[in-house]
Amino acid sequence: MPLCCAAPLRWPLSERPHLPLLLLAVQTVLLVLFTLLVHYPPLDERWRPRYRDTLASWALHRPEEPGQRTAGNQRGQLPTSVFQDVHVMIFIGFGFLMTFLKRYGLSAVSLNFLLAALVLQWALIVNGFFHLHDGRIQIDVESLLGADFTAACILISFGVVLGKTSPTQLLVMAMIEVPIFAFNEVIGRRYLQVSDMGDSIFVHAFGAYFGLAVSFAMFRKDRDSENAASNTVSDLFSMIGTIFLWCFWPSFNSALAQGDVQSRAVINTYLSLCASCVVSFAVSALLDKRSKFSMEHIQNATLAGGVAVGTAADMMVQPFGAVIIGSVAGVLSVVGFSIITPALDERCRVHDTCGVHNLHGMPGVLAGIVGAIMAAMATHEQYADSLYVIFPAMEPMENATAQALAGPEHGTQAGRSAGYQGGMQILALIITLAIAIVTGLVTGAILRLRVWEQLDTADLYSDRRFFVVHDPEEGDAPPPPAGNESKTSEQL
Amino acid sequence: MPLCCAAPLRWPLSERPHLPLLLLAVQTVLLVLFTLLVHYPPLDERWRPRYRDTLASWALHRPEEPGQRTAGNQRGQLPTSVFQDVHVMIFIGFGFLMTFLKRYGLSAVSLNFLLAALVLQWALIVNGFFHLHDGRIQIDVESLLGADFTAACILISFGVVLGKTSPTQLLVMAMIEVPIFAFNEVIGRRYLQVSDMGDSIFVHAFGAYFGLAVSFAMFRKDRDSENAASNTVSDLFSMIGTIFLWCFWPSFNSALAQGDVQSRAVINTYLSLCASCVVSFAVSALLDKRSKFSMEHIQNATLAGGVAVGTAADMMVQPFGAVIIGSVAGVLSVVGFSIITPALDERCRVHDTCGVHNLHGMPGVLAGIVGAIMAAMATHEQYADSLYVIFPAMEPMENATAQALAGPEHGTQAGRSAGYQGGMQILALIITLAIAIVTGLVTGAILRLRVWEQLDTADLYSDRRFFVVHDPEEGDAPPPPAGNESKTSEQL
Amino acid sequence: MPLCCAAPLRWPLSERPHLPLLLLAVQTVLLVLFTLLVHYPPLDERWRPRYRDTLASWALHRPEEPGQRTAGNQRGQLPTSVFQDVHVMIFIGFGFLMTFLKRYGLSAVSLNFLLAALVLQWALIVNGFFHLHDGRIQIDVESLLGADFTAACILISFGVVLGKTSPTQLLVMAMIEVPIFAFNEVIGRRYLQVSDMGDSIFVHAFGAYFGLAVSFAMFRKDRDSENAASNTVSDLFSMIGTIFLWCFWPSFNSALAQGDVQSRAVINTYLSLCASCVVSFAVSALLDKRSKFSMEHIQNATLAGGVAVGTAADMMVQPFGAVIIGSVAGVLSVVGFSIITPALDERCRVHDTCGVHNLHGMPGVLAGIVGAIMAAMATHEQYADSLYVIFPAMEPMENATAQALAGPEHGTQAGRSAGYQGGMQILALIITLAIAIVTGLVTGAILRLRVWEQLDTADLYSDRRFFVVHDPEEGDAPPPPAGNESKTSEQL
Repeated sequence: MPLCCAAPLRWPLSERPHLPLLLLAVQTVLLVLFTLLVHYPPLDERWRPRYRDTLASWALHRPEEPGQRTAGNQRGQLPTSVFQDVHVMIFIGFGFLMTFLKRYGLSAVSLNFLLAALVLQWALIVNGFFHLHDGRIQIDVESLLGADFTAACILISFGVVLGKTSPTQLLVMAMIEVPIFAFNEVIGRRYLQVSDMGDSIFVHAFGAYFGLAVSFAMFRKDRDSENAASNTVSDLFSMIGTIFLWCFWPSFNSALAQGDVQSRAVINTYLSLCASCVVSFAVSALLDKRSKFSMEHIQNATLAGGVAVGTAADMMVQPFGAVIIGSVAGVLSVVGFSIITPALDERCRVHDTCGVHNLHGMPGVLAGIVGAIMAAMATHEQYADSLYVIFPAMEPMENATAQALAGPEHGTQAGRSAGYQGGMQILALIITLAIAIVTGLVTGAILRLRVWEQLDTADLYSDRRFFVVHDPEEGDAPPPPAGNESKTSEQL
Repeated sequence: MPLCCAAPLRWPLSERPHLPLLLLAVQTVLLVLFTLLVHYPPLDERWRPRYRDTLASWALHRPEEPGQRTAGNQRGQLPTSVFQDVHVMIFIGFGFLMTFLKRYGLSAVSLNFLLAALVLQWALIVNGFFHLHDGRIQIDVESLLGADFTAACILISFGVVLGKTSPTQLLVMAMIEVPIFAFNEVIGRRYLQVSDMGDSIFVHAFGAYFGLAVSFAMFRKDRDSENAASNTVSDLFSMIGTIFLWCFWPSFNSALAQGDVQSRAVINTYLSLCASCVVSFAVSALLDKRSKFSMEHIQNATLAGGVAVGTAADMMVQPFGAVIIGSVAGVLSVVGFSIITPALDERCRVHDTCGVHNLHGMPGVLAGIVGAIMAAMATHEQYADSLYVIFPAMEPMENATAQALAGPEHGTQAGRSAGYQGGMQILALIITLAIAIVTGLVTGAILRLRVWEQLDTADLYSDRRFFVVHDPEEGDAPPPPAGNESKTSEQL
Repeated sequence: MPLCCAAPLRWPLSERPHLPLLLLAVQTVLLVLFTLLVHYPPLDERWRPRYRDTLASWALHRPEEPGQRTAGNQRGQLPTSVFQDVHVMIFIGFGFLMTFLKRYGLSAVSLNFLLAALVLQWALIVNGFFHLHDGRIQIDVESLLGADFTAACILISFGVVLGKTSPTQLLVMAMIEVPIFAFNEVIGRRYLQVSDMGDSIFVHAFGAYFGLAVSFAMFRKDRDSENAASNTVSDLFSMIGTIFLWCFWPSFNSALAQGDVQSRAVINTYLSLCASCVVSFAVSALLDKRSKFSMEHIQNATLAGGVAVGTAADMMVQPFGAVIIGSVAGVLSVVGFSIITPALDERCRVHDTCGVHNLHGMPGVLAGIVGAIMAAMATHEQYADSLYVIFPAMEPMENATAQALAGPEHGTQAGRSAGYQGGMQILALIITLAIAIVTGLVTGAILRLRVWEQLDTADLYSDRRFFVVHDPEEGDAPPPPAGNESKTSEQL
């Protein structure tokens, strides 16, 4: 809309350029890190000798190394489609889900966009730092997918503090949270050898409790506002986010799986989501005096099944198990919105704008518990050798030798019993919650520092503080003069 | 939006909990059925002996059995991407397409969501019941895709009665329609051995005429309402649905095909959709006194080409044939909206909220006829052996022996002539219409029973009866008090 | 919404049927061309001998011919997913991106839809004309993808003249632009043997400068209007377009690549987009007196990284290079919106409604330059044999013999040096700009002819001239009477 850039304002340089300069500084640091550290993976040798006849059959090559679970097939074809699905979840799904506030839609989708684009870069470096190849970071499509998962975690925390934080604070929060997230995931996956296919522990539970801890540390009494409400149009925009998340969640929960492990993850996620959708509607109406459905529940609780089945998505929960998990998650989530969130706000000083605790927090913990139970019950009889794909540490010693040779990422543990694996799963959940809460509190305290811009009460849940808004209707802007209708809000 | 759950209302339990309790009851029955009947397919034996070196090349395995047309390749990789496309069509496509009513957007997208999530589960059981493995139901990703197709059918019927039925009635309708749909499809596919790649007969025509029959049986004189109109914003939301349906329709019509049969289905669908889009615009302007385009036509008639080419999508209609099919469908659909739908309403007492007859009804019948003609003209010369992939019953006797061994699903017929196949195609269409209309009438009569909640005139096409609406603007709600802005509509 | 078609208006045939009749005429010509020229590719022989056991492993077959770079693998599986991603970009991405004008949303998304559906058909014929097989056109899924790319080009030009042209003019523009586009691409790809993976030269730069030249030739002094502004809701709809474009851009830039060439294109595009997003936000706030973000920048400049990295997407720009390219594109694009677009409008009489020059024009030129530099620096050491996949003309003479046998499309040149290849890249860019500007000026002059309907000032950026609009609120329509609420705007 170039007409907006009318003649008089030529180089209207910012008078308070803290935020843009900070953004540029961070992007510059990222650039330096990319320059020093990040590389493509080595060219596949296969191009060389056989390139003529293998060119078209590229997708078919197999990796030589045992244990290289996803790289081979993925590199050829799988990832673009799955990766694109997850990408849509992050930017459309999370972005539009948060547009439910009637005067914060532009901010929600835009800050989600900005934050995610920053985090993707930062996560490539931080995650890569934990998986160095000869002191350097190699990125492939799987790394991009991993960065998207990291972004999901940070955006979950963002949901808790939505509308109550300045972009500067969000930026600082994201930069702090990414390394902690990566550190916690390395503990869980590499050292405790925990299985968490849909990342319910490491992404959902971590992101939710980190955000809740930040919110507690940043509690403000003026958090209520006339702006903190939805209207029909904002609810419809939010449903775009909900439904894309709901539709692509099977891809999220099966992103790195293959074969019938992948199908199982898709089936379980699909069933759990269906059940949580139906149950959420039911409980939503049941908790309303006039039996009406609440859009807030429909937008969020319907997704709780995807979170709750995440850790065990590829395990033998059986179809009925997936339905039970989704149903319990739906009840938990709607009850959370109706009872627990207001109580947390009033009694515990934890204000949660999007109700993240109900969609990611409690269902994430539920997922961790279900995963531990399933792990403790896993037998080779049920899973055949796919057991060792899901729980590599349960592989018998003799088989594991080859695996251990494949590198440190596959760990050195082997021969675990099912019960021991279950215990490790619970331990990873507890450690995740502990790290999330402690580091979240510290991060929240940091965000209160005067160095970072804080929001005034009038700016809560309002686009007008950080975005050029063209609507005259709110009573605080005159109708734009004909011919130069824009820059309305700046002229005030 | 946890702020909505303000202090005074703690456990405001529903005073008329019929609907939520019914939902919970249905979900419980589904759970019991899942527990008793539904299983994963047996673990692929291939994991066991070869798991180390085949892990990464999983996508490549071939099924041993001849005739297992889609399972093999699909299980590895194809389905997630195609399945996800169809999933988006069901929930985003149908959901947003129906948001065109200016005061029924929340209901349209939410009830579409609820209904589809219910139907997916119910369809897995019902469809599985017709394909039992040792008395049990096995579900894989293809089953999920099949359930999505079933959901499409029920949502088409939903479009006819949109805004005129309570959620309870919709729920009852869906539970009745799913088994009838499955029964009709088994007659057509298993016994008549009919080819219907894009499901235009079994999904579109069935769903449309079932819904129209229901609407006839439930006809009410107060069906007109000031609410039954769109505005610009609702039209834009509806376009989200239209365009996702339009974009992913090639995936829908080629979902279960492979190789060049699949490409042909994609090409034909793409061309037919392009033609129906252009022709719909043209005819829309031609039928308007001031040559204006009507959004109603753009939202719906542009898609008619996808329906009309469905049955013959993988047949040798040739590119020009696809363009003709799409063009005819476009004309038919726009003329339907302008002439036939009002006439059906006034003279035949069939009120059709979304104009389903024009998008799914007539184009579905057209598809069936085109499919029959193409089948009657099919030769081995044109199709090579892919003829028997499309029309298994036309395979010569000697080849068919192996096929027959593959199980009852492949039927025992063989050696059909092209003309005979064409006749069977028409027969399946006629049977489909007959079953849809008769069972639709009965279902409509059942829905009129006072047991199920009926809508008052004031609640027609309005979100306010079943959804918590926060907009004050309609004149029937005071502006929300500051600080506790929600629950507006309940306070009235 | 069949209720709109109320009783009195039965066959209200258009009184000015120029546009619809023109549409029908064009569609009829297309049909004739399809009938005479267009065919499916020959049936794959493989169906015949081996059909039983290869049925399920179809995806795996390899093409026999060397040099047939994409056909083999694509035909089986790759394309549907990638093709569908690009399809969504064209119809959802471009369509909704242009809904930012507050009173032109219906037109933007609908005319984008109509134009694209026309162009897809026309492009199949025109592109096919340059790749005849025995005097006939064969279309496969790759052709469909190619048509989508052509549509992208025409829609970019559409963005420049959005709201200032009648549908008739758009139609004429599209019919003229498609063959010129194809002609220019053939010069670049076949004769100059230029590499442009993401089509930044042939699609983005061409489309932008063609459109700008058209706009110059059609300059009108009344281009400013109160309608030429956005509001919050239109900005949110526009963000749907932005984010789908942003998410699926990696598919666009890697659509025809494979193996690690494809991964590299995905990685580079992803990084460049992330950087251009962050930098656009930063520069947007930096150029605003009150440090506010402008939605116009967020909707457009964030995507500039995808354009700017396009030509070199599969080259060895390295991750840090991709970040630099995206950052520069972000700066360029925001500065373009703030400074260059208003200057072009006022001083050069080039009005650019969507700021296409900033998103596609300058970043497209940047992409061409970066591609030339990368080509000039390319070595076999860096790329191994994939060098010849990216730059076939650089293949040494002896290898190239086999390639030359594969047909004229692969050219006869061989043994080019890197510097020569770089020069050819620049030459292609210059030729593209020259052809775009010259033919754009001519096209613009043609569009001014009185034969084609021109817009009145009052109809600029307004849905009301060509679309039935139901909103009463603008003051130019009375509230609809109860019971027959539609056709509002016609009654005036």
